[in-house]
Amino acid sequence: MNYCDIIERISYDILEKNDPGNVASYIPELAKINPDKYGVFIKPIDQEGCGVGSCHEKFSIQSISKVLLLAKSYGIHGELLWKRMGYEPSGDSFNSLVQLEYEKGIPRNPLINAGALVLCDILIDSLPKPKDDFLGFVRKLAVDDTISYNEKIAESEAKNGYTNSAIAYLIKSFGNLKNPVEEVLDFYFHVCAIEMSVETLATSFLFLANGGIVPKTKERILSLSKTKRINAIMQTCGFYDEAGEFAFKVGLPGKSGVGGGIVAVHPGIYSVAVWSPKLNKKGNSYKGMKLLEQLTSATDSSIF
Amino acid sequence: MNYCDIIERISYDILEKNDPGNVASYIPELAKINPDKYGVFIKPIDQEGCGVGSCHEKFSIQSISKVLLLAKSYGIHGELLWKRMGYEPSGDSFNSLVQLEYEKGIPRNPLINAGALVLCDILIDSLPKPKDDFLGFVRKLAVDDTISYNEKIAESEAKNGYTNSAIAYLIKSFGNLKNPVEEVLDFYFHVCAIEMSVETLATSFLFLANGGIVPKTKERILSLSKTKRINAIMQTCGFYDEAGEFAFKVGLPGKSGVGGGIVAVHPGIYSVAVWSPKLNKKGNSYKGMKLLEQLTSATDSSIF
Amino acid sequence: MNYCDIIERISYDILEKNDPGNVASYIPELAKINPDKYGVFIKPIDQEGCGVGSCHEKFSIQSISKVLLLAKSYGIHGELLWKRMGYEPSGDSFNSLVQLEYEKGIPRNPLINAGALVLCDILIDSLPKPKDDFLGFVRKLAVDDTISYNEKIAESEAKNGYTNSAIAYLIKSFGNLKNPVEEVLDFYFHVCAIEMSVETLATSFLFLANGGIVPKTKERILSLSKTKRINAIMQTCGFYDEAGEFAFKVGLPGKSGVGGGIVAVHPGIYSVAVWSPKLNKKGNSYKGMKLLEQLTSATDSSIF
Amino acid sequence: MNYCDIIERISYDILEKNDPGNVASYIPELAKINPDKYGVFIKPIDQEGCGVGSCHEKFSIQSISKVLLLAKSYGIHGELLWKRMGYEPSGDSFNSLVQLEYEKGIPRNPLINAGALVLCDILIDSLPKPKDDFLGFVRKLAVDDTISYNEKIAESEAKNGYTNSAIAYLIKSFGNLKNPVEEVLDFYFHVCAIEMSVETLATSFLFLANGGIVPKTKERILSLSKTKRINAIMQTCGFYDEAGEFAFKVGLPGKSGVGGGIVAVHPGIYSVAVWSPKLNKKGNSYKGMKLLEQLTSATDSSIF
Repeated sequence: MNYCDIIERISYDILEKNDPGNVASYIPELAKINPDKYGVFIKPIDQEGCGVGSCHEKFSIQSISKVLLLAKSYGIHGELLWKRMGYEPSGDSFNSLVQLEYEKGIPRNPLINAGALVLCDILIDSLPKPKDDFLGFVRKLAVDDTISYNEKIAESEAKNGYTNSAIAYLIKSFGNLKNPVEEVLDFYFHVCAIEMSVETLATSFLFLANGGIVPKTKERILSLSKTKRINAIMQTCGFYDEAGEFAFKVGLPGKSGVGGGIVAVHPGIYSVAVWSPKLNKKGNSYKGMKLLEQLTSATDSSIF
Repeated sequence: MNYCDIIERISYDILEKNDPGNVASYIPELAKINPDKYGVFIKPIDQEGCGVGSCHEKFSIQSISKVLLLAKSYGIHGELLWKRMGYEPSGDSFNSLVQLEYEKGIPRNPLINAGALVLCDILIDSLPKPKDDFLGFVRKLAVDDTISYNEKIAESEAKNGYTNSAIAYLIKSFGNLKNPVEEVLDFYFHVCAIEMSVETLATSFLFLANGGIVPKTKERILSLSKTKRINAIMQTCGFYDEAGEFAFKVGLPGKSGVGGGIVAVHPGIYSVAVWSPKLNKKGNSYKGMKLLEQLTSATDSSIF
Repeated sequence: MNYCDIIERISYDILEKNDPGNVASYIPELAKINPDKYGVFIKPIDQEGCGVGSCHEKFSIQSISKVLLLAKSYGIHGELLWKRMGYEPSGDSFNSLVQLEYEKGIPRNPLINAGALVLCDILIDSLPKPKDDFLGFVRKLAVDDTISYNEKIAESEAKNGYTNSAIAYLIKSFGNLKNPVEEVLDFYFHVCAIEMSVETLATSFLFLANGGIVPKTKERILSLSKTKRINAIMQTCGFYDEAGEFAFKVGLPGKSGVGGGIVAVHPGIYSVAVWSPKLNKKGNSYKGMKLLEQLTSATDSSIF
Repeated sequence: MNYCDIIERISYDILEKNDPGNVASYIPELAKINPDKYGVFIKPIDQEGCGVGSCHEKFSIQSISKVLLLAKSYGIHGELLWKRMGYEPSGDSFNSLVQLEYEKGIPRNPLINAGALVLCDILIDSLPKPKDDFLGFVRKLAVDDTISYNEKIAESEAKNGYTNSAIAYLIKSFGNLKNPVEEVLDFYFHVCAIEMSVETLATSFLFLANGGIVPKTKERILSLSKTKRINAIMQTCGFYDEAGEFAFKVGLPGKSGVGGGIVAVHPGIYSVAVWSPKLNKKGNSYKGMKLLEQLTSATDSSIF
């Protein structure tokens, strides 16, 4: 299949249309982004990838990092992870405290903020130098040593992260964070502030399409079974209260971030990343959703 | 792949083990079932199917009917359906009224009781003889004219269906049922009381694995796109608050019923149905879950 | 204190002002009322009462009946009542199912719909002829044999009472209704459809201001302790999610109905009833609230 | 009425009985208290007061301070206060985040933790030296210059106050705290750590029984109307999800603290404070509840 032609044609369509979305405004540093940025990159396992638009420009991947946090923690701790969180869809928005209180500090799944905070707590306990080590892990996945944290964005999030602080303190009150809340939040805000281009992002998720192995380096990151399970979690939990919408319209496991990025994986075939900062009402990139919907239609590549 | 050998071997393993589950007791007529019944049938698109155990004995498919209700209504009304319900996972148990009240009588998805009741209301408006016509539809999918309602079970459900009555009246209070509550409930209780064997059940779901076409008769039931969407909904919403668990461990779109049946679909490849009346704490067949988990591991056939 | 002068003066003020409220529309028969009706009657324990406006015209007392249901049931069963319901404020609107589901069919208090339905169930078990006997009880309190049910309104409520049906079936599903739901609802809808004038209403509540004894007949209805407890429940639970507002601004135990009536009790001193059909956003009579607020200010008669 | 005889007799009864309660353990410094401490003091407006047990020993008044915070803020800001919080019972436990999230950071009432945190925020903006000035206010009410904060307890609360931190950050995320969360929490933890004896506590609440005037100094603290409103709020909101229980069994406006103190007010007549550290399941002093229940029965002094 000629993916290059397809994403070019779809991008052409999408860029012509009006985008009713809005750039995320709750983090001042993120709000500064040019709202018209657009980039997409598709990376088949066994072919060269190809991209359209600003596909080498770095942006803040935000919640997409949660999948990478999960991959790292799951690799280290295996099924023990599920003593500290579940893997059920939440049916609620990404930062709700309601469910967390009813369920006594056990996050519904690793891909909501509460779950990612617990993953950060776990990695602080497991990694000698959490920030450095985690960055090293991401660089290895992407086969790219230039990936780094954007300190300005991390700081901006810390200054305005009242809801995340509330979530972290609530988890702490139930005893499900071992480390000091400030330390967990600092790590979390950094992880959210990782910057990648759509090209590196697609590349870093390719191991999830390839049974757990980074195709370029042949390094096994996770077992086949764990890889499938992460894909399953992305499918059911990757889009907060729009998980059903994404499964319904796109039909691939994926994850979005408020920076306007979305990444999706077609197991056995390809990974794809798209970036467009304007978000729909549910907080997912408006054009990103459209692109992926049309991509899976055009290539008949939904997993369903 | 020799599916027959595989399901025989797995069944042998599973039948040896202790089953901590319990038969559903809230419908007296269902509670009378022999708890040790066991049957499984797998039906590849392009091969003969094969089964193990009581695979020709009929049982009450219960909530599995919801998928068939959805297929029938979706075929008639298309995307208009989503004005009356959503397609997001509920994150709650199958009969919760909480979410329904907060969301003003719009069910989260078609596979919870509230959603199925609205589907019944829609079909009452669309079909000249709802009960007969719906049964005709199911017989066509299964290519089996002996499928029918179990009137005793329908009656038993009606007598004890207080929660479903509460749900129906709540939806009615928000104006999302057009027909009299009693009529909707009567149709609903009948639909739940359809009886099939695992063989007919697997056969009747095969069109969902085959892009919307019944393989044997070549009849198109739904478009490819609608078929995929139903599979996506099964994936994210088919197991109530255990949807994540099923995606995680089995990795196929599927649907369970309190009668102890589970059906799952591997798009492009096969459908499979299993029956074992003892349920786990979440209300899904204990052995059925185990069988499917081992089946997808052994055949490496999860969609992820 | 010259109560007559005071209520005349306040009524004069209130009737001059604009009333932004709306007549309850969900029961068609209630919506037919002339929205400008107004009547108030105050009945001191040891003086003649006096009234202003249409104080002899009967209207539908609706939820005010719940206090009378409570008085009757509490007199028969005493503290056993609290095995079937609580006496805590609900913090929610009068017809919410959310709390009821979380709390497994045990209503928060007797003055929300759920609680009153359980009271009806209890009285069906306790009274030989529930409707007649309950009416007899109310007539005795009011010393007025003309009080009766408005069958048209009872019927209108039954036809449109979907939310109440949902609540009743939900309670039934938890086993906290013993009698058939239809029978309980029929009794409940009749009880809501009792008609009284503000004069008879004030008179019928006077025993609550008088330690449990009907002043005119000297008949003891309830012990002093039970009487105080009913007043306490009216104070904390009598106005749904506006209970705090009423305590704050009026400062008396009281109860409102969607027919536009409100009754309040100043223990040891008087009872007062007011009727004006236009309701504020919380479902309580707009002018009734104003009248009582000004009455307790003018007479310095709040219990606080 | 000879209150001294009455509280002596009741105390004698209560001290003989088994106390199934438990000392609050979530603040280590509070858990160190001798669980068998007991003191009660009743202060009529126009008589000398009298006490039983350790009535001059200071203890941590904890949440009782919330009423004093309210009195101070209400005196300064009047009805503007209600733009930042409500005055409805919450129907939930004192530290729930659920309602706060649904209601967008506007606390239900001033006597739950969320409300008191907003009061602290308001006083930080209104008082030149918040801690000193508030202490001065309390000393004035109690006519006692020795009242002070227990720094050790304030510190212990700060170290373990994860739930309060979560609540404060959640309110902040909705914009309903103006000052830095740390500053608000520090003030709040100090206010909770005020120490008084039952004698000073009863004395400091006597202005609420006396129409807003401190009897001894004749100083007017609040208008009559504001005083009544605070009493009404105590009545409906003073005991979290046991507010109905207290109204039902005691029948006076009051407030409890996890330190084991309870204070109650009989408008126009007396105030009373009791201290016994073992708490019932709802977090209110077990013996304190008993004492007050028997006191209002014996003196026939409920407001209902």
